[in-house]
Amino acid sequence: MIKKLLPIVLLMLLAATANAQTQQVTTLMPMPKSITVVDGKFALTPSFTIAVKTDAADATLYFGVNRALQTLNRRTQLFFKQQRITASDKADSASLLITVRANAGVVIGQDESYSITVSAKQIKLEAPNTTGALHGLETFLQLVQYDDTGYYLPIAKINDSPRFVWRGLMIDVARHFIPLDVIERNIDAMAAVKMNVLHLHLSDDEGFRIESKVFPELQKKGSFGEYFTQSEIKDLIAYAKKRGVMIVPEFDMPGHTTGFLAGYPSLSATPGKTYMPGPRFSPGDKPMGLMDIMKMLSTAPTPTFDPSKESTYLFLNKFLGEMSALFPSPYIHIGADENNGVAWKNNPAIVAFMKDKKIADTHALQAYFVSRVQKILTKHHKHTTGWEELLSKDLPKDVAVQVWQDGTKARSAAGLGHPVIISNGFYLDLFMPAYIHYQNYLFANKLEYALAAKVLGGEAAQWAEAMDKNNAETRMWPRTAAIAERLWSPVEVNDVDDMYRRLAVLSRQLDDIGLQHISEYEKGLRRLNDGGDIIALKTLADVLSPVKGYKKLFAKMTKTPSASYQTAPLATLSDVIMVDSEVKRKFRALVKSYLQSPDHHSYEAINAMLMQWANQYADLQSMPGKAQLNADIMRHAKNMSDAGFVGLEALKKWREKEQPSADWIKQQMAKLQRTKQVYGEAEIAVIPEIEALVNQKLAPEPTSYPMF
Amino acid sequence: MIKKLLPIVLLMLLAATANAQTQQVTTLMPMPKSITVVDGKFALTPSFTIAVKTDAADATLYFGVNRALQTLNRRTQLFFKQQRITASDKADSASLLITVRANAGVVIGQDESYSITVSAKQIKLEAPNTTGALHGLETFLQLVQYDDTGYYLPIAKINDSPRFVWRGLMIDVARHFIPLDVIERNIDAMAAVKMNVLHLHLSDDEGFRIESKVFPELQKKGSFGEYFTQSEIKDLIAYAKKRGVMIVPEFDMPGHTTGFLAGYPSLSATPGKTYMPGPRFSPGDKPMGLMDIMKMLSTAPTPTFDPSKESTYLFLNKFLGEMSALFPSPYIHIGADENNGVAWKNNPAIVAFMKDKKIADTHALQAYFVSRVQKILTKHHKHTTGWEELLSKDLPKDVAVQVWQDGTKARSAAGLGHPVIISNGFYLDLFMPAYIHYQNYLFANKLEYALAAKVLGGEAAQWAEAMDKNNAETRMWPRTAAIAERLWSPVEVNDVDDMYRRLAVLSRQLDDIGLQHISEYEKGLRRLNDGGDIIALKTLADVLSPVKGYKKLFAKMTKTPSASYQTAPLATLSDVIMVDSEVKRKFRALVKSYLQSPDHHSYEAINAMLMQWANQYADLQSMPGKAQLNADIMRHAKNMSDAGFVGLEALKKWREKEQPSADWIKQQMAKLQRTKQVYGEAEIAVIPEIEALVNQKLAPEPTSYPMF
Repeated sequence: MIKKLLPIVLLMLLAATANAQTQQVTTLMPMPKSITVVDGKFALTPSFTIAVKTDAADATLYFGVNRALQTLNRRTQLFFKQQRITASDKADSASLLITVRANAGVVIGQDESYSITVSAKQIKLEAPNTTGALHGLETFLQLVQYDDTGYYLPIAKINDSPRFVWRGLMIDVARHFIPLDVIERNIDAMAAVKMNVLHLHLSDDEGFRIESKVFPELQKKGSFGEYFTQSEIKDLIAYAKKRGVMIVPEFDMPGHTTGFLAGYPSLSATPGKTYMPGPRFSPGDKPMGLMDIMKMLSTAPTPTFDPSKESTYLFLNKFLGEMSALFPSPYIHIGADENNGVAWKNNPAIVAFMKDKKIADTHALQAYFVSRVQKILTKHHKHTTGWEELLSKDLPKDVAVQVWQDGTKARSAAGLGHPVIISNGFYLDLFMPAYIHYQNYLFANKLEYALAAKVLGGEAAQWAEAMDKNNAETRMWPRTAAIAERLWSPVEVNDVDDMYRRLAVLSRQLDDIGLQHISEYEKGLRRLNDGGDIIALKTLADVLSPVKGYKKLFAKMTKTPSASYQTAPLATLSDVIMVDSEVKRKFRALVKSYLQSPDHHSYEAINAMLMQWANQYADLQSMPGKAQLNADIMRHAKNMSDAGFVGLEALKKWREKEQPSADWIKQQMAKLQRTKQVYGEAEIAVIPEIEALVNQKLAPEPTSYPMF
Repeated sequence: MIKKLLPIVLLMLLAATANAQTQQVTTLMPMPKSITVVDGKFALTPSFTIAVKTDAADATLYFGVNRALQTLNRRTQLFFKQQRITASDKADSASLLITVRANAGVVIGQDESYSITVSAKQIKLEAPNTTGALHGLETFLQLVQYDDTGYYLPIAKINDSPRFVWRGLMIDVARHFIPLDVIERNIDAMAAVKMNVLHLHLSDDEGFRIESKVFPELQKKGSFGEYFTQSEIKDLIAYAKKRGVMIVPEFDMPGHTTGFLAGYPSLSATPGKTYMPGPRFSPGDKPMGLMDIMKMLSTAPTPTFDPSKESTYLFLNKFLGEMSALFPSPYIHIGADENNGVAWKNNPAIVAFMKDKKIADTHALQAYFVSRVQKILTKHHKHTTGWEELLSKDLPKDVAVQVWQDGTKARSAAGLGHPVIISNGFYLDLFMPAYIHYQNYLFANKLEYALAAKVLGGEAAQWAEAMDKNNAETRMWPRTAAIAERLWSPVEVNDVDDMYRRLAVLSRQLDDIGLQHISEYEKGLRRLNDGGDIIALKTLADVLSPVKGYKKLFAKMTKTPSASYQTAPLATLSDVIMVDSEVKRKFRALVKSYLQSPDHHSYEAINAMLMQWANQYADLQSMPGKAQLNADIMRHAKNMSDAGFVGLEALKKWREKEQPSADWIKQQMAKLQRTKQVYGEAEIAVIPEIEALVNQKLAPEPTSYPMF
């Protein structure tokens, strides 16, 4: 009467793999420069203590050390007798002895190295400065493992330092406002993977997201009440600093400026026009074609500053002066992207100004504008940075250029002597699997000499058309960790399978320190099912991915215009599902292993997964809950079930060593082809692996995907 | 080969019940004063619009209306064409027409009524003021339902107003600091159930949690960096006000003041002593007996202000002046609880002062202190409130008395003419099931006349010895909603089963608006299993409860002294599990129904639940993951499995109409008795219901539980 629960069998098999992994030191992420592990353990007990030897009184260091102790306490529940580490804790005999030679703030380009030596009796962490020590503490925590005797660290020796000095994450808080607690959790996650720059895109057409005391109409008219106060920003800067992260603010101009113009329309290149924050292009009530959208992007006048009026620069001088005082970052980002110049060409006064100043075209006029703003920032003791469109021949060499669209611009900018930050290949909002970012061609090999000298590093970039506070963490994590490793670890660390293996472990560590990516995903599923249980829905959703590239974004405009207003919370199927299916990665690893050597363990695990997929459709159909009424979900459920049954049949042939006929293969491949259909901007992620079971060869994954 | 998944069958059965419930209007919580529902629907479509008719420009009202629109958008994903409601939206023809007669702030005692009329063509919400309208909007959202034709509201007429004017939640943010985002989510949840007072316990021995600009050593030495800045508090007050919630700050004195004394030791009744924030009584390294603890509570000198020195009042005048200006609340809470007077008796100067002033004993001295502080607050235009110990004969009548320990104090205080707020019976940190609070004897019947005139209402109270940011939301919710209903709804609304039925629906609505109680619970389970899947663990955890009363608190001191330091994150089994098992409530309802009439549906559902419980032990044993190594968890798993098998056997007898023998019953009851064992301060919640299957009678639930 009492039967074993099928999912449990499956989970046991999967977990067995995961557990074997957590036993390995090589779950570290990012991988350090060098690591040696030998047999043996340092055992953790309630008597574990930490001491700090440092000449400098350093609040950041003690904060970091205490934070690490709490993380360890939470994970191990050992209730350490040492409750807090203070300056009086400096005994040589401490379990973890931390030696730091100098205090340090968050400074790009400083020494970030550290070393860790774990012996059976003591752990030593040494670093030239606080920043290195903070990195070392994260590695220390990642080294902690458990077995049935308890928690321990393996005997190991690590020497580590980063490949690039600028390891950033750009979060667009303008298109959808992303609240403070989400940003703070992102900073925690960044620190866990040793990233050091948080770039906040604070203004755009959809909103102006920071308080100005000098120009209060900015937030008043530009934010619908959703913005950071200066007090919050100060606290956030301090929060980030304590975790080794610098905050670089971006105020996008001269285009992408509806957020500014709502409060101060006199800045506009289109005189007399009034503005309300919202998407650059309003799709109207009727669905548009893709071509219409593309045409609109290049020909419609977009909200843009007037670069011909001195009053514009007077405003920017005051505004950027205020922001320069607020942000300690040596860089201020001025955007300067995607200005199509149409608004300028449409304004006779601006055309006359260009003629008068002998400015040949709107590109040159943009260069003029950038040059004026750069001078203002220099006056306020800041370096300018901006997107690749700000590059022009006469641009001062200290301006850092952030390459996003055109990878060749990295060489142009470096050639002109500019520091270069690369986001090309790191756009998280394109819904690409982590391996695509991990294999970014600009980083996958050693950089050529000219570039190496000027490339500071890179930035993952998350634009917020399809991100809001409800799904921000699943959009960015854990994928960002793959980019963090690309920017930190030696170029030789490049095994995709191994990256995914470690990423799965890291994802759970991020969950433990507070990141909401797993919670947010499951909450999204509960919403989709309106209170019904989500077991069957999750089985399906776990193997769905949003469509890649700009397809989701444009689908909104072409299908549901009102969905693109960006005022409704993001809670549809493709908003909720994880971007890079972890179950697909596990399944792919199992299929790969089984095709190489068809062992019992892989067979059982693959079989259990396929059975779940085959069954979830019937389960969803018969379970009350809102998901059942969602046509997109039910179509995917049917397709996943069909594909699951195909997979089971194929696996049976393998098992029984029956060579499938060419006809059978053809039929099954045709069936699987039909399951690749996109519904609700989502697609099933595991079809290539099921195809591999059918035709007995696993196709390599695409190195790129179409954008549209 | 392909078998149905057992849990799915179970969930289908449970969900069928839940779904039938969500179809009923009576899922409203708190229940309104009057409601009439007739057949028919108002259908929601993307063309749904809202208009507001009001004479007063009222930012709070428009904020609330827009917030409701977003909640509706998120739940329905209808992408309403109306993106925002502004003052220009006032068409009589709107789908939801809101008429508000006057603007209003958060004022205790104002008219909070509203009415809603839903017809097939329009919804009308009318209220005398903004506060009533905000309540009405919450009811409007709770009325929204769906079927396979889409979302709709039933045709209905509601008239509503509260039973009590003070419907509060006290959160202790001192013992463990509770961050801003958690507090904000609590305010959202309070608003959803029409509560209007958030009482923040801002200082205690463990910490001082608010920035003072006048006395900055308070937060500097008293918080380990964990406190609210004044800027954050201002934002929080505004956040709460927009949701109809007033924030009442508490600064506990003269005892519970280590948080003060760390920064300003000269305030202390024990001259020369220095202080570090921490528990009043340090348990030391050795486990203590319960008696030792009780003795210590009454005889050890506790950190206390010196009431004999004028400098104390000079300090308090400045400090309370600063806080009175910061908090718009007309009330300031001064605690005044649990001062055992020992520190005063030990200080000869204080003893001399008492003699000099003819103050008979330390009780009278406390009355003297309270009277001085009350005068200071009066000068700063504030009313004083405090815990019941502040009551004395000469206390000015405007002082509100919060009864917590001794219910008879409600009558004493009312008799002396004081406004009364009742927390007795509403202590959430006692880990009682919701029905205990719901049936609070002080509220369950009509109040006697003398009390009715003076009782403002009540407050749920959550002290933070066993709550921190990791489990705050599961400690307080959804149970607080039962208290909210007790304080809002007519006394006649008192059916426990019906309350639990509606509470389960509400819990999911709170999850949808952002509360983290479900997410936090599941994150806690993931932590307990360190990355392993939690299906089997959750099956067990869903039917566990923390031990009731002060047993968990004292177990810490008596068993694991270092666990009581309160510096380690709370992540043990009993910290993670829900306080009032929802699965127990569903199981109990099924068993009750089955005992009354043994139908097939109940049988299937009960059988499936028992099978899950019977099986989870084997699943946990065989699944890798940390939970397997946790002796407490595995002991409960074994017991739950044993109880599950007993239940299955009993159910089989029912099914087969076999009258069990007295011997068999005795044996099974003895087996079940053994499964009631407490491990890890947790116990299995469903044993009484399994006993009912065995002996064919369901015992009524206890009306109270022992505290120790």
